Amino acid sequence: MPLRQAAAPGLPRTMRALVKATAASGLELRQVPAPEIGPRDVLIKVRKAAICGTDVHIYEWDPWAAGRVQPGTVIGHEFMGEVAAVGDAVTSIAVGDRVSGEGHIGCGQCYACRTGQGHICDRVDIIGIDVNGCFADFVRLPDSNVWQLHDSISDTIGAIHDPLGNAMHTVMVDDVSGQSVLVVGAGPVGLMITTIARAAGAIDIVTLDVNPKRLALATGMGADAAFDPREPNIEQTLLARTRGGRGFDVMLEASGNPSGIAFGIKLLRSGGWAALLGIPSSDVSFNLANDVIFKGVTLHGVNGRRMYETWYQVESFLLHGRIDPSPVITHTLPMEEYARAFDLLRAGDAIKIVLDVNPAKPKCTEPPQSTQDLNGAR
Amino acid sequence: MPLRQAAAPGLPRTMRALVKATAASGLELRQVPAPEIGPRDVLIKVRKAAICGTDVHIYEWDPWAAGRVQPGTVIGHEFMGEVAAVGDAVTSIAVGDRVSGEGHIGCGQCYACRTGQGHICDRVDIIGIDVNGCFADFVRLPDSNVWQLHDSISDTIGAIHDPLGNAMHTVMVDDVSGQSVLVVGAGPVGLMITTIARAAGAIDIVTLDVNPKRLALATGMGADAAFDPREPNIEQTLLARTRGGRGFDVMLEASGNPSGIAFGIKLLRSGGWAALLGIPSSDVSFNLANDVIFKGVTLHGVNGRRMYETWYQVESFLLHGRIDPSPVITHTLPMEEYARAFDLLRAGDAIKIVLDVNPAKPKCTEPPQSTQDLNGAR
Amino acid sequence: MPLRQAAAPGLPRTMRALVKATAASGLELRQVPAPEIGPRDVLIKVRKAAICGTDVHIYEWDPWAAGRVQPGTVIGHEFMGEVAAVGDAVTSIAVGDRVSGEGHIGCGQCYACRTGQGHICDRVDIIGIDVNGCFADFVRLPDSNVWQLHDSISDTIGAIHDPLGNAMHTVMVDDVSGQSVLVVGAGPVGLMITTIARAAGAIDIVTLDVNPKRLALATGMGADAAFDPREPNIEQTLLARTRGGRGFDVMLEASGNPSGIAFGIKLLRSGGWAALLGIPSSDVSFNLANDVIFKGVTLHGVNGRRMYETWYQVESFLLHGRIDPSPVITHTLPMEEYARAFDLLRAGDAIKIVLDVNPAKPKCTEPPQSTQDLNGAR
Amino acid sequence: MPLRQAAAPGLPRTMRALVKATAASGLELRQVPAPEIGPRDVLIKVRKAAICGTDVHIYEWDPWAAGRVQPGTVIGHEFMGEVAAVGDAVTSIAVGDRVSGEGHIGCGQCYACRTGQGHICDRVDIIGIDVNGCFADFVRLPDSNVWQLHDSISDTIGAIHDPLGNAMHTVMVDDVSGQSVLVVGAGPVGLMITTIARAAGAIDIVTLDVNPKRLALATGMGADAAFDPREPNIEQTLLARTRGGRGFDVMLEASGNPSGIAFGIKLLRSGGWAALLGIPSSDVSFNLANDVIFKGVTLHGVNGRRMYETWYQVESFLLHGRIDPSPVITHTLPMEEYARAFDLLRAGDAIKIVLDVNPAKPKCTEPPQSTQDLNGAR
Repeated sequence: MPLRQAAAPGLPRTMRALVKATAASGLELRQVPAPEIGPRDVLIKVRKAAICGTDVHIYEWDPWAAGRVQPGTVIGHEFMGEVAAVGDAVTSIAVGDRVSGEGHIGCGQCYACRTGQGHICDRVDIIGIDVNGCFADFVRLPDSNVWQLHDSISDTIGAIHDPLGNAMHTVMVDDVSGQSVLVVGAGPVGLMITTIARAAGAIDIVTLDVNPKRLALATGMGADAAFDPREPNIEQTLLARTRGGRGFDVMLEASGNPSGIAFGIKLLRSGGWAALLGIPSSDVSFNLANDVIFKGVTLHGVNGRRMYETWYQVESFLLHGRIDPSPVITHTLPMEEYARAFDLLRAGDAIKIVLDVNPAKPKCTEPPQSTQDLNGAR
Repeated sequence: MPLRQAAAPGLPRTMRALVKATAASGLELRQVPAPEIGPRDVLIKVRKAAICGTDVHIYEWDPWAAGRVQPGTVIGHEFMGEVAAVGDAVTSIAVGDRVSGEGHIGCGQCYACRTGQGHICDRVDIIGIDVNGCFADFVRLPDSNVWQLHDSISDTIGAIHDPLGNAMHTVMVDDVSGQSVLVVGAGPVGLMITTIARAAGAIDIVTLDVNPKRLALATGMGADAAFDPREPNIEQTLLARTRGGRGFDVMLEASGNPSGIAFGIKLLRSGGWAALLGIPSSDVSFNLANDVIFKGVTLHGVNGRRMYETWYQVESFLLHGRIDPSPVITHTLPMEEYARAFDLLRAGDAIKIVLDVNPAKPKCTEPPQSTQDLNGAR
Repeated sequence: MPLRQAAAPGLPRTMRALVKATAASGLELRQVPAPEIGPRDVLIKVRKAAICGTDVHIYEWDPWAAGRVQPGTVIGHEFMGEVAAVGDAVTSIAVGDRVSGEGHIGCGQCYACRTGQGHICDRVDIIGIDVNGCFADFVRLPDSNVWQLHDSISDTIGAIHDPLGNAMHTVMVDDVSGQSVLVVGAGPVGLMITTIARAAGAIDIVTLDVNPKRLALATGMGADAAFDPREPNIEQTLLARTRGGRGFDVMLEASGNPSGIAFGIKLLRSGGWAALLGIPSSDVSFNLANDVIFKGVTLHGVNGRRMYETWYQVESFLLHGRIDPSPVITHTLPMEEYARAFDLLRAGDAIKIVLDVNPAKPKCTEPPQSTQDLNGAR
Repeated sequence: MPLRQAAAPGLPRTMRALVKATAASGLELRQVPAPEIGPRDVLIKVRKAAICGTDVHIYEWDPWAAGRVQPGTVIGHEFMGEVAAVGDAVTSIAVGDRVSGEGHIGCGQCYACRTGQGHICDRVDIIGIDVNGCFADFVRLPDSNVWQLHDSISDTIGAIHDPLGNAMHTVMVDDVSGQSVLVVGAGPVGLMITTIARAAGAIDIVTLDVNPKRLALATGMGADAAFDPREPNIEQTLLARTRGGRGFDVMLEASGNPSGIAFGIKLLRSGGWAALLGIPSSDVSFNLANDVIFKGVTLHGVNGRRMYETWYQVESFLLHGRIDPSPVITHTLPMEEYARAFDLLRAGDAIKIVLDVNPAKPKCTEPPQSTQDLNGAR
């Protein structure tokens, strides 16, 4: 809510943007006014952006999206780019900085925001959902939400800091060192959770999904084992891996599937803990007495990324080579091919797709072999 | 599971006991064999015992009781008494010691038992439910489960250490200092939670119940306010007390009522926590997305008492005069009047009833005015 | 470090201020330029301020002060007042707001600042020490450092939020509910620690000081006992109060006296914890093996106030009537009588002195009887 | 303190044992009476034992040893073996079980012992120091102190569970996931700390020691870098690796060297934490103000192993192949060659030496190639 709006000098007045044009399925790539910035704002020229499952919900205009998103909104919240302009009161960021950004814009004044919990501010605006997002040439953020990218982190990985942070927050919400961990769901975030849990010291990581390609990726990214939960006797198979057959120390939920959530909680040992990140689309029914109360289990709801502890953790694990999330990126496409990208995701033929919006010149930070790695379906 | 059984020398071979005689409603006071003890066991002559809501369920033979309790079992798990005999390998307890005891008998060998979490041992036997209990002249416990009572703690308070420990565990499962606390349910444990939360540093304690007498007791025992949740606009009334109207920092659940649980969780602020002690008799359905995940809330299932951290905490708060749970004891009756006691509880005309089994001589630890306090309905 | 300086319109260009005029003992009340503000700054007209022990060190120009404070600096960091002007980019604070403020100005960009730990930013500027302070008609703070005072908190209590926050941070750095607590030192902060520890749920609070008046105040403010550490057999006396004679669960250090620190740590039980707030003026020598390592003790260094968790805690305890720190305020004097104030403090004849800088009109928030309470030596 | 002593039937009445024979340097291998057992005791036939630095202090009869150890004591506390006899009241352990054991024998009745902190019981007896130890054919332990070894853990690794547990406890005393860690000291425990910190999720592990062979081992066991602290500009070199040059998140102290401790604490970042395991032989002097208080640092004293959380952690990391501590074992020698073993250790020519006391037959659990690995100096 900037005090006054000002067109950044020397910048175009309009831009390309993927817009939720009407209250119906689909998106539209069109010219819209470029964002104006207030004194504390930063304008970022987007290089790369990535598509989240939430974007697919908005594309499909499901009941949640219809209830929250205003038609006309520019969507997208995972991105990296280069600072194009800064407001008059900005001192911490300069034009030309290579950045990603936290898309949860807290009110800045409530208890949550003033105690390092801006991710659960009750008045949060999320870019690409509540305010204009990053599937566009430019995106605006308050300076406090901007994250400087280290030179040794590639543009592509910079573009997926948002979901990497979701995964990091989920793993780090309680202690995983030396714990057996059940990961429910091997979509992009479940896979990132798997690889982070391994790097963070978990001692037996088992990932569940119904998709065999995802299970193979999970194993490649650090899971000690990966199973389809529909296998016969899966409960016994899973419990047999655990100490005394009593259950997993930790369950990290990334599916949002009500039965997956209940199954994961059931497989926790007495005294274990779970982090719930996946969003169920309906109420979830539990055997709260047997599965939570008698067992003395702890459940943590997880939302967004801790500001900015989680961002530092993502940077640390990347810079020290402890994680490599790049296998989750199955495709890189120009923004213009957004329709194909959404089709691939809706068909289950892609895991994470990065959109080239205004990609850097080839000589830049992305070395050729890694570009190769990140292109084409795997 | 003692190695070998031995009748304690000089002790009677039979005793009076309240037995779940048949698979139907009711209890029977009859003569049964006195417990034999193994080398690590302690035999306690029961002075006073107290009736728990669980005992009422067993009396009424509800589906839970019918599924778990074997007919023929001596019931009761809240008590204090005097040590009558000890096994050959017992060194920490002596005949004549004044004691209460932890009724959750862990296996002693599993991960939970060996890491101070015997209360959630998967093979726990609970006295009065899985093995013979304390509504009898004598009760047997392993020496590790026996708790020495300090001289300055009365027999009556000694007899309710088990539910006091439930309440203490619930309050102490996470940090309440400086937190606003919503207590759901003002039965005996909810009232104890209320008074402990006050002593433990909570800054605004609001207790909910549908019974006006219990609400009055809650206010007398430390609640800053007490409400009937059926009041019109109760949600607004409650939220209006909280910082920015955003909800309570903490919710402590002692009702077991599914709608009470869901209401309490809904009233938590983003980032708050809840301890769930009350046992719902059916599955509970949540808006897990809105009330737990998006809010980043933490839920702790609570069962029994931490062994033996909770017992030390109960002793500390009592010895330093920080809590007085005696107002919850509305009646003291001889064990022979058990039928009247259960009638009072089933009619909602009593909160906590203490049974005199083999009460100490009048000159003893209980001063007259406190005896007076504890008799008669309030 | 504001981008550009601007005299606030309609405000005086000079003001009265207590300045460390030369590199020698003493202070000077003189006219200095009023602060200019940048776009994110707030200018506060100071109503009341309070003198800290640190101010006495600066007055006396001890080696620490000589090594850190630049002559010419306006001193003072404890205060409350009214907002007189705000910078162009300020939206959260308005002219006329009644406020106190956090005097630790973090860089805002480092790991500590971006993870809610601005109080330990390595580049922190403290008002009244590193930059101009609040013993003046006006003080400047970044908007993020300004704290809105609730209407029901008096100006006088508002002026001591900084030391109340030190005390709160010390008590809240780990869990005190149900713990026995030894408070070392009964100066203003030790007394505030005593009263907060009581309200926060400690079960036996013992405060040590060599000054009998302070010991009497400690008892009045919540200590269960208060002792002069020079008493014969003090160690035995103190240990005799603790469980099994094994030592205190918690030690809160507010003296900064090296022998007091070592004595307090020695009196901790095995597994206990200490918070160290008092600043020793020289190195401290420990029997680290016996008193920390073999006992498995935890020591927490404490500095400043958590931003802004601690401020919310201070507000909560005050608003809910759980603490009343007013007994520590032994004198209220006009700023012009600063010399007398410093004399009283240096002579040990005062505990906390509040300076009236630009006090509110009598009809205002401070009721007469409380003004009376706060005047005159006690 | 068993109730009554009884010679285990069918077992020899005397045995070989390494005894601290006189109050002077040296040890003696002699025949002594075999231990008698009480009803809760277990008698273990020792297969393999390992020499700790503490044993070297006792050998050398330094002031600490002279002040604590009674001449006549059988020394040694690191071992594994086979259960030879159990007391009448023992149900959890059977003759023939392959076991290691916790050498800290708590009183079992104090607050520490009853809350899972028996390692810091104030009345602890340590085998090989306060009571007879394991450098002998047989050693006696209470049943609660006996640890069943999993089949897939070799005898050699079973013999070093005690120091592995010290290392595990040190790493696990607070959170290391995603943290940069400075390990001070690369003796056997410092090396184990290094490898556990890596497995537990630390993201940059730097180990310090003055011995180049140990530094090479550290690098091989998981350190990202290893340095001699006497290198020029070592402080700058180390800080340059850390975020913003501000210092390490965590410091794990395994040297006991007073200057090493102080150096390690100085290199912590503001808000960091340290675990202090190494035992300084004299008082340690700190700049407590600058290095602990102003920085808001937390120091944890660490002693022994958590009972029995730490033992489960050791088992988990070993069973899941996350750590391999075998490189620290530079020599395996028959117990008869104890003099050579102590000479090697005193000369700094060995790191960890395992003594064959009554080794298993060759066909057993130890595969040939691993025996080979563990012989000969490396």
